[in-house]
Amino acid sequence: MKPIQKEITITGKDNPVVRHYRKLRDQKKIRQDEKLFVIEGLRIVRDALQYPYLVKQVFVTETAWVRHAGIMDFALREPVQMIHITDNIGELMTDTEHTQGVFAVCRVPEPKSVPELLSPDGKYLVLCQIQDPGNLGMILRTCDALGVDAVFTTGCCERYSPKVIRATMGSVFRVPVADMPNALNLLTTLRECGIRSYAAVLSDKAKSLKECRPGCGCAVWIGNEGNGLPESISNNCEYHVRIPMQGGAESLNAAMAAGILTWEMMNCQE
Amino acid sequence: MKPIQKEITITGKDNPVVRHYRKLRDQKKIRQDEKLFVIEGLRIVRDALQYPYLVKQVFVTETAWVRHAGIMDFALREPVQMIHITDNIGELMTDTEHTQGVFAVCRVPEPKSVPELLSPDGKYLVLCQIQDPGNLGMILRTCDALGVDAVFTTGCCERYSPKVIRATMGSVFRVPVADMPNALNLLTTLRECGIRSYAAVLSDKAKSLKECRPGCGCAVWIGNEGNGLPESISNNCEYHVRIPMQGGAESLNAAMAAGILTWEMMNCQE
Repeated sequence: MKPIQKEITITGKDNPVVRHYRKLRDQKKIRQDEKLFVIEGLRIVRDALQYPYLVKQVFVTETAWVRHAGIMDFALREPVQMIHITDNIGELMTDTEHTQGVFAVCRVPEPKSVPELLSPDGKYLVLCQIQDPGNLGMILRTCDALGVDAVFTTGCCERYSPKVIRATMGSVFRVPVADMPNALNLLTTLRECGIRSYAAVLSDKAKSLKECRPGCGCAVWIGNEGNGLPESISNNCEYHVRIPMQGGAESLNAAMAAGILTWEMMNCQE
Repeated sequence: MKPIQKEITITGKDNPVVRHYRKLRDQKKIRQDEKLFVIEGLRIVRDALQYPYLVKQVFVTETAWVRHAGIMDFALREPVQMIHITDNIGELMTDTEHTQGVFAVCRVPEPKSVPELLSPDGKYLVLCQIQDPGNLGMILRTCDALGVDAVFTTGCCERYSPKVIRATMGSVFRVPVADMPNALNLLTTLRECGIRSYAAVLSDKAKSLKECRPGCGCAVWIGNEGNGLPESISNNCEYHVRIPMQGGAESLNAAMAAGILTWEMMNCQE
């Protein structure tokens, strides 16, 4: 067992460590400059502590310390800084209505390179300009549960914002994700690796998902909530696929569409 | 073409009609007592006006009136009260960051009776204690798109709250939904009608959705986000079904699980 790096107690709400946590929580620029992000909740902090070098600091309120017996057990395994805080400070730090009083600052993992993530029989999801943090988080959670090999994002909302993290329920630590600067280049890279791209579209001209199922060696492309995929992308994908709709709704929520397409892709053995 | 019932202009922010709208927006009790709810946005108001006797009042800001040429066309078809408001009043009424300046007060439709909704070869979704408005709205939108025959809710969050309405994207007007006071009674009623109930559970003992597909004459039961279905319900369902998971996530978001199960049910012809 590795020792705790340092154990401190903070009682002042103006303490710079607390101020730093709140800046990381609220400001994308600080998160990106420092390559750090914050998480909140007993379960997700426990989750995070299973990954080496992910967690930098753990904050626990007095009440949480009493309530969750053995809370130290999970922190002891990693050399993290354990910080005891008052309940009042917990209220300043929380992003929820009823805080559990457990928080952490984590390091953004080093991104994997695209070649590391690709294999010719892999199954991938590509997200273009997904803007709603709840949607992005839900998609990552779904990809984790269903076992997608990797997710690529281009022009999406920030993956390490508190709203996305919360919606992932810890999947953000598990699903391999790469942010790509250029969607068209990614399309080319996928093709060179023998991976076929399926553009999810609403057009009646597209094939129904019942007839045209992505499977091994495929990437499903999902577009923005309001506008779908850019034409420059969908025009260059090998296939156009639509989820057949019988009712009056004109479209599914982007996360739901991603989930159903992913479910079909994962179940296709071809 | 029916005439507009009445056309008025409101410039004072303390006007009782505006105050009433805001109460309906913010207070569940007022919505339930008066059997009214509010909607916001050009598209959903247009949608609502296609249904007879649904819309009571339409509010349009000066800017919206100029921007959306022909905005009257859609209001003219129904005898609604058309109310012109200033942009400042629109800012008071909105529930979004950037309002389109179009609002309406709608009447809660008379609920259909259960026998009206049931047929022995129908396909149904039952929601028990879904508490997140975004989830409930997304599920209703998905059921509309995929063509579920009816949705039953028991102990869920309020269907006519602005957050649910927004997430449905208009599907709230289209999907037949019945609120049931007692889940066990509903289970019995379904059984008496020859409809088999499938409890969505996480247990490994349940059959995988790949082996056990709900189809015609089936109802899929989805439980609460944190706790799943009450045992009193799942123990009495004919089948237990789980969505097979390969990754590290312990569960899917409740709306996503509902969507994937519904997708499979709608595609099953048996």
